[in-house]
Amino acid sequence: VTDRESLKREAALRAVALVESGMVVGLGTGSTAWYAVEALGARLRAGDLTNVVGVATSRATEVQAEALGIPLGPLEPHGVDLAIDGMDELDSQLDAIKGLGGALTREKLVALQAKTFVLIGDASKRVSYLGEKAPVPVEAIPFAQRVVAAELAALGCTPMLRRDEHGEPLVTDNGNVIFDCHFDAPFEAGEVARACKAMSGVVEHGLFLGMADVAFVASDAGVLELTR
Amino acid sequence: VTDRESLKREAALRAVALVESGMVVGLGTGSTAWYAVEALGARLRAGDLTNVVGVATSRATEVQAEALGIPLGPLEPHGVDLAIDGMDELDSQLDAIKGLGGALTREKLVALQAKTFVLIGDASKRVSYLGEKAPVPVEAIPFAQRVVAAELAALGCTPMLRRDEHGEPLVTDNGNVIFDCHFDAPFEAGEVARACKAMSGVVEHGLFLGMADVAFVASDAGVLELTR
Repeated sequence: VTDRESLKREAALRAVALVESGMVVGLGTGSTAWYAVEALGARLRAGDLTNVVGVATSRATEVQAEALGIPLGPLEPHGVDLAIDGMDELDSQLDAIKGLGGALTREKLVALQAKTFVLIGDASKRVSYLGEKAPVPVEAIPFAQRVVAAELAALGCTPMLRRDEHGEPLVTDNGNVIFDCHFDAPFEAGEVARACKAMSGVVEHGLFLGMADVAFVASDAGVLELTR
Repeated sequence: VTDRESLKREAALRAVALVESGMVVGLGTGSTAWYAVEALGARLRAGDLTNVVGVATSRATEVQAEALGIPLGPLEPHGVDLAIDGMDELDSQLDAIKGLGGALTREKLVALQAKTFVLIGDASKRVSYLGEKAPVPVEAIPFAQRVVAAELAALGCTPMLRRDEHGEPLVTDNGNVIFDCHFDAPFEAGEVARACKAMSGVVEHGLFLGMADVAFVASDAGVLELTR
């Protein structure tokens, strides 16, 4: 049995194999995306790729990419050729929940500007419906947090303010807070997505619907390539 | 001819006259709202009002209110009895453009939780249609700014990144940037509002549609009370 970290790395390698010289590449955030950034750095160092620019979805990824010598640029409209990122949950339509790493807003912005958006992960992330295992993260401005919590609860979930290792409310790279919204039963993802985005004080939510073009899902049996 | 500042103050006094003891009062931001906060502090000091709690829409207003001894509290769901704020433009339906003071996101959050939302200003703010004189401010997260600028331009306006007195991009209390969107021709405000709110990377916009219950508009002829 292959361990979880090896599986993450295998999925990441498959995605990074799609990168070509001259591309602008969206660099995801989180433990699986970390392997992709590492592999991209290795291909650049090996001279296998040239003239690649990364767009980092978080401060953490920026730090990692800089250490690996990957040149970084700002997010431009329609300016990303290929975005690679991990997922917390993936259904059969390639709809996903993201945001466990706290970078959902920048991740979604980069994915939306990408010609091709690739999700990577191990098979434990596959679900029969979104919300089966993971909560839906929602980023909100701190001033609005009591109002947003009440409005999220009205959608039928239990919103939990995410905390850091010190028990303090986690602050995102954008200076905001995150509610992890736990649903007891399956929900209509499109409706929840629209309702969340319409709330004043909500910056973004972690439902990535109709966005991914490809997903690489690694299990002991190998890496499965899923397309929409 | 009464000067502009006196008119602002007269409108503010009319709004503050609506405050009753025990109320939670939304405290707006900007030069006209400043007079309202000042007048509220005076009524509290005079003992004319007791047990009033303010909810400040900006750090600047927080500082002013604290200096005046107005107790402040957080924004709670449906937790504001009366919100008082200035406007940049007001049409005959009491639809408004706000955000010249840079506090539009918190202002809208407070107004949305208010049982009664009162706008105040001098008569120069009245327009026959929104956008006649003022741009529509849109608050966006800095990482998204190039994308949001392109998407705003696609709505038919010219988005100008607001700058501070040093020429640097202005940073809001929420750590974001503001685009002042100049429209050359009248636009359908409801459509622009929906389109702005739907954009990833946009936190809030300055179109306050169907929100104000009352407006006090001061001119040389006196203070006009407008209701919807």
